[in-house]
Amino acid sequence: MSGQSQAAVERAIVARRERVNEAIAEELPIEHPERLYEATRYLLDAGGKRLRPTVLLLVAESLADVDPDAVDYRSFPVGDDAVDVMKAAVSVEVIQTFTLIHDDIMDDDDLRRGVPSVHREYDLSTAILAGDTLYSEAFQQLLETGADPEHTNAAALELATTCTKICEGQSLDIDFESRGAVSTDEYLEMVELKTAVLYAASAAIAAMLLGADEETVDSLYGYGLDVGRAFQIQDDLLDLTTPSEKLGKQRGSDLVEGKQTLITLHAREQGVDVDDLVETDSVEAVDEAEIEAAVERLREVGSIEYARETARDLIASGKDNLQVLPDNDSRDRLEDIADYLIEREY
Amino acid sequence: MSGQSQAAVERAIVARRERVNEAIAEELPIEHPERLYEATRYLLDAGGKRLRPTVLLLVAESLADVDPDAVDYRSFPVGDDAVDVMKAAVSVEVIQTFTLIHDDIMDDDDLRRGVPSVHREYDLSTAILAGDTLYSEAFQQLLETGADPEHTNAAALELATTCTKICEGQSLDIDFESRGAVSTDEYLEMVELKTAVLYAASAAIAAMLLGADEETVDSLYGYGLDVGRAFQIQDDLLDLTTPSEKLGKQRGSDLVEGKQTLITLHAREQGVDVDDLVETDSVEAVDEAEIEAAVERLREVGSIEYARETARDLIASGKDNLQVLPDNDSRDRLEDIADYLIEREY
Repeated sequence: MSGQSQAAVERAIVARRERVNEAIAEELPIEHPERLYEATRYLLDAGGKRLRPTVLLLVAESLADVDPDAVDYRSFPVGDDAVDVMKAAVSVEVIQTFTLIHDDIMDDDDLRRGVPSVHREYDLSTAILAGDTLYSEAFQQLLETGADPEHTNAAALELATTCTKICEGQSLDIDFESRGAVSTDEYLEMVELKTAVLYAASAAIAAMLLGADEETVDSLYGYGLDVGRAFQIQDDLLDLTTPSEKLGKQRGSDLVEGKQTLITLHAREQGVDVDDLVETDSVEAVDEAEIEAAVERLREVGSIEYARETARDLIASGKDNLQVLPDNDSRDRLEDIADYLIEREY
Repeated sequence: MSGQSQAAVERAIVARRERVNEAIAEELPIEHPERLYEATRYLLDAGGKRLRPTVLLLVAESLADVDPDAVDYRSFPVGDDAVDVMKAAVSVEVIQTFTLIHDDIMDDDDLRRGVPSVHREYDLSTAILAGDTLYSEAFQQLLETGADPEHTNAAALELATTCTKICEGQSLDIDFESRGAVSTDEYLEMVELKTAVLYAASAAIAAMLLGADEETVDSLYGYGLDVGRAFQIQDDLLDLTTPSEKLGKQRGSDLVEGKQTLITLHAREQGVDVDDLVETDSVEAVDEAEIEAAVERLREVGSIEYARETARDLIASGKDNLQVLPDNDSRDRLEDIADYLIEREY
């Protein structure tokens, strides 16, 4: 990825993020009962790259072949209709936020986006309810874009089946924690369900609302599925290869905590005793030398390279899937995002 | 309510419940990952009257003016189309079940429908996820009835806004527990949001899927709102007036636990020191004489009669709202259900 492409994709993400953030404030006002609605906004307002809504907006722009700098997302041209594609963009971000809130309860995580998780900042009941409220608000948003009713139905059904899959993925992820023998295929299935389907739905929903044909919708779904899986694998790689100070947390914490990743599962399949790679069992006590030795071992048996190669293949396949789009700047940015996801360093 | 009407409404409920139960088994099969899907079915299979889907089916039958004994809910006649109204019926029952699972976590209730609650039988994470899975499955069901896309959109939007309101109602209910001064109006708002809107949506969604005009949809929504509020007030009354052996739990347990109800809030407004009505603070230790004295006090200040009268007025208003329906057996059963909800003894 050239420096020029990297600058272009970062500008594209920032420009759309700002407009998504404005729309979130407009679409999800703090109403009565205030404490509940404050909790629904708390994590949304704490940050986030807004990658899923950005993918959705870029797909819409590319398909409609419009100038992204001039287009009004709130009144987006689809045939003779004006469709509020921004509501759809808000919808997928809201779903992502609901899953983070509930996941943090299940994993008992204290921090998210640098602030206390919702069940820590508020309480368990408020966190469950905030997630449940966002869940229905996401459907409200998607059902009110003003798109053709048949297209809206298809998009809403896509969102519903996507949510079911995300729950299946989270269920598998929890299940894996108490299981030793997970295959790399099982892991990739989990990642697909837990993470990638929402990227896939973001791309596909934009195409559905615009009335694209089935082949186009399927290809764009494939793009999201590919880059979403690559994104998660890159996350796993960064935990091992990025210096702690850049990562914002102890490098190798996944190894210390015994978290299964594509890398450790591959190493296990190569006969490495993964559970003993790092003997220290607390993130606070581990030192860099012990982590470095473990990473070196993973490198030797080819597990780091295997994960890199898997992510690279997925990105190549994802970019192939973009051939269904017209050749324009927005398509270029979707290609850049694919590269960006595996070249980012944190 | 005559004995004949009571027998007719009980037959009507049982007949529809059996068909709803069959549909639940068909529509929500146990899939991979099994433990998650077993948890989604666990509370559904533990029982329940299926009143909300019954209301939905009765409204559809009445509006279409069909013979309920001969009609196929899976291929229900709407103009030239065949609509699967049973999927819509399953949808509202599934939403009800999701809210029960999450409410039981928030209230830390151990039992539901005579069996351990989902978070007790399984664990917290599985219960959160089972609720989340049912949530999206309800939308899938409602989006796949085969009704006209515009009608489907309206129905799905109704379901989404209803879910948001239910979350608001649960939030208010939790908030009331730590607040002394709740007015009867605030209480009725909470009951409307937490309980009544799903009855209202059940009636309205049937009308929407059948393409009924706005006035009809609004009246039927009003019917559900009225009978849903009356249902909750009757629940509060039964806790005080039904003998323990019939109730299946200690009579007056709401008083012992300090739960706010329309009756205690009215009594407080009459100057009764409700917190001291029952001094014993555990349901196990309280005796019938103490409960009887407290109920007698509530009767003296008119609070029992006030709640009865409020429920009766709501039922009368609910039945008035049914005038938009054609005069047929299904409409009669909807009237009977209204009476049944405040005449039932448990």
